[in-house]
Amino acid sequence: MKFLIFAFFGGVHLLSLCSGKAIYKNGICKRTFEEIKEEIASYGDVAKAIINLAVYGKAQNRSYERLALLVDTVGPRLSGSKNLEKAIQIMYQNLQQDGLENVHLEPVRIPHWERGEESAVMLEPRIHKIAILGLGSSIGTPPEGITAEVLVVTSFDELQRRASEARGKIVVYNQPYINYSRTVQYRTQGAVEAAKVGALASLIRSVASFSIYSPHTGIQEYQDGVPKIPTACITVEDAEMMSRMASHGIKIVIQLKMGAKTYPDTDSFNTVAEITGSKYPEQVVLVSGHLDSWDVGQGAMDDGGGAFISWEALSLIKDLGLRPKRTLRLVLWTAEEQGGVGAFQYYQLHKVNISNYSLVMESDAGTFLPTGLQFTGSEKARAIMEEVMSLLKPLNITQVLSHGEGTDINFWIQAGVPGASLLDDLYKYFFFHHSHGDTMTVMDPKQMNVAAAVWAVVSYVVADMEEMLPRS
Amino acid sequence: MKFLIFAFFGGVHLLSLCSGKAIYKNGICKRTFEEIKEEIASYGDVAKAIINLAVYGKAQNRSYERLALLVDTVGPRLSGSKNLEKAIQIMYQNLQQDGLENVHLEPVRIPHWERGEESAVMLEPRIHKIAILGLGSSIGTPPEGITAEVLVVTSFDELQRRASEARGKIVVYNQPYINYSRTVQYRTQGAVEAAKVGALASLIRSVASFSIYSPHTGIQEYQDGVPKIPTACITVEDAEMMSRMASHGIKIVIQLKMGAKTYPDTDSFNTVAEITGSKYPEQVVLVSGHLDSWDVGQGAMDDGGGAFISWEALSLIKDLGLRPKRTLRLVLWTAEEQGGVGAFQYYQLHKVNISNYSLVMESDAGTFLPTGLQFTGSEKARAIMEEVMSLLKPLNITQVLSHGEGTDINFWIQAGVPGASLLDDLYKYFFFHHSHGDTMTVMDPKQMNVAAAVWAVVSYVVADMEEMLPRS
Ligand SMILES: [Zn+2]
Ligand SMILES: [Zn+2]
Repeated sequence: MKFLIFAFFGGVHLLSLCSGKAIYKNGICKRTFEEIKEEIASYGDVAKAIINLAVYGKAQNRSYERLALLVDTVGPRLSGSKNLEKAIQIMYQNLQQDGLENVHLEPVRIPHWERGEESAVMLEPRIHKIAILGLGSSIGTPPEGITAEVLVVTSFDELQRRASEARGKIVVYNQPYINYSRTVQYRTQGAVEAAKVGALASLIRSVASFSIYSPHTGIQEYQDGVPKIPTACITVEDAEMMSRMASHGIKIVIQLKMGAKTYPDTDSFNTVAEITGSKYPEQVVLVSGHLDSWDVGQGAMDDGGGAFISWEALSLIKDLGLRPKRTLRLVLWTAEEQGGVGAFQYYQLHKVNISNYSLVMESDAGTFLPTGLQFTGSEKARAIMEEVMSLLKPLNITQVLSHGEGTDINFWIQAGVPGASLLDDLYKYFFFHHSHGDTMTVMDPKQMNVAAAVWAVVSYVVADMEEMLPRS
Repeated sequence: MKFLIFAFFGGVHLLSLCSGKAIYKNGICKRTFEEIKEEIASYGDVAKAIINLAVYGKAQNRSYERLALLVDTVGPRLSGSKNLEKAIQIMYQNLQQDGLENVHLEPVRIPHWERGEESAVMLEPRIHKIAILGLGSSIGTPPEGITAEVLVVTSFDELQRRASEARGKIVVYNQPYINYSRTVQYRTQGAVEAAKVGALASLIRSVASFSIYSPHTGIQEYQDGVPKIPTACITVEDAEMMSRMASHGIKIVIQLKMGAKTYPDTDSFNTVAEITGSKYPEQVVLVSGHLDSWDVGQGAMDDGGGAFISWEALSLIKDLGLRPKRTLRLVLWTAEEQGGVGAFQYYQLHKVNISNYSLVMESDAGTFLPTGLQFTGSEKARAIMEEVMSLLKPLNITQVLSHGEGTDINFWIQAGVPGASLLDDLYKYFFFHHSHGDTMTVMDPKQMNVAAAVWAVVSYVVADMEEMLPRS
């Protein structure tokens, strides 16, 4: 907080990070910010070498090609599926073959839900096959399905006002798309709210910023004491059509069949690999993405890209013969889509060493062209990250923004560890998210090169600086 | 051709369209171009009244709402389907109820093809359900399907070079998208070319400029003397994935099942309505769109929008109490998607009156925000159309471009009648074309208002001018 004063000094950079001119650490005033700046500036050549290798050199397109090979071979990787476990085994081999260190799997028990066969047909006012995707954790319908009249609402408020109309119906939500974090509550809570007013099932307009008749799945959450009802997403197009029909007073009847079922939890793993630190091996900079995905498309964007630029960051550093002072640890999370299950397990296992975590990084919002780094940490740490990001001037990606949080690193951030997420051009992300459209066609090898370069420079420099990032 | 000289006169507008200062028609030098310009300029207030009514007044959003009601009620309208005939009957009633004149149906025999049940599953290298849409006129497979190895090619040239590899295989075309007219040959000719080299079936990458895992159907053409093989479109995503797999030497096996079948031709109709001309009722300005569509989505964009702005043009003119000197004829074509079947029948029936057709107009490339009018006709006629379009200055849509052709008006244009098509912002058109995504969600009521205003001004003024458009 004191550090806010920094902004007023303009061009003068002889600022102190503790009172007077020096930084206190363990009671000792160690270095001025000017010294830290100089230290970071000394990584200019390393940063250029990483950028050259990733963007213009022989590592060009490697993360894209590695990712394509995995997701073409395995396909999507739902929590609890054989595909996910196959992907983990392949990655374990890949990381070993890449010459990374301490490659190992850390066991996690994860949910096992399958959608089974599913369909929805509009019976009135006309026969129309409705594209659906059951939502993760939803129960199924009876084998004969649920056939009921539809109540269309555009908000939870409207559902409350019309609660008396909902009993025995299928509630269709046609909520407008505002942004993902605001609109996703209809997917996560829609079934519970519909069940509270006596609905038999709920169909949720997909949380998507643009649609070509594509349903977008994702997790939903039941609530203790509220009946569980089947729930699926439908397309923006069908939600809007039913809304128009309802506004004309037309009766809509749908038959919904869902074979969704939750099985006992299964064994899975977080996949870990390292470049062990040369000077402070017990200290960690963590780079990560999640290996699981939804069961449609290829899970290429969410989060194959994040997982593979994280691997690529270590590969680039290793290829350049670099070994940072502290350990650079790659974690490929399992079961993120079920609520960060792998990440929670990892935190439980490793939180005893929390004082050794300098920075936790996750890429899980696309690997399109990066626009900067999202960061959560103290003002002092932010000032340091701004210097680190200035090393990316050759790529013109130097912004440090707020909100470094991500599902898989939040446990650490909430406990005070600085956290960073990759920010990229998100415009198209919610076109494809959790849909059949999340495939390699979305991915751009050149954009992945740049994303990997950013990821490698940030993680290497923070791992190699003389001091850990300050927490206050 | 003489008229090209016009361009060099700059601000001076006292140009003659025949030698000297006057225009010859039937051997009589009738009017100078300056006089025609003045005549057209005198429609300024009428044009403004049409624009005000359509864009800002009580007719706002009417074409959108009428269209939504039809396509929500009926759904898609494939040639030969009950849906199409239902839509024609509804439109017949709509046009009568709207108070239009000479509302009638002109019989046409049209093709009746149905896709039936269809599916494709990749069996090797991994199980993957492939989204397909059988192509119009394709034969089906045997009930047990066709299971065969895949040969992926990116062009007809590559298929020729690798002809010896094609026998007994399913040919997958992964041609790049250049533009619709250049790339669509793979859809129309892909099966024939594959059959010539002994393939059992062909799967065509959808002709789409952007994809969220959506297949795009359309007509395909068999050739006498070449075996008929089943053919369907697949998504851009799956075509690209199979291309990557093949480039790694991976064997791909697909099981294709198609229940497609061609039935005997059925009875259908072109739907016609008029505002009968006050002075030259035998002379015609034709405005049109097609009422049929593919059997997926709602046929809202292709070509519900074109059909409904054409109807709207007549409604706007009628609402303003206007009656042009010659007859304004609305035609809603049947079976355009099968190769302009309704339009061909209409031409056969009416070509005897061809000398009375002043202008044929079709909107079949979207009703997004119009950018101008595409026009085919003599230089003299083009100069007149440029004056007519200058009446649309209040909407800032005054361009007259080339290529007025359209499937349903080409017979007339080839026989010398001036023809015009609506040009609009085509950027997104091939995102949705012939796919499940062609729904009302694509349509924008405000853009349709503007398109209808352009359509009404052009058709009314050309129908009301003292003289028909010159053909030479
Ligand atoms: Zn994710
Ligand atoms: Zn069309």
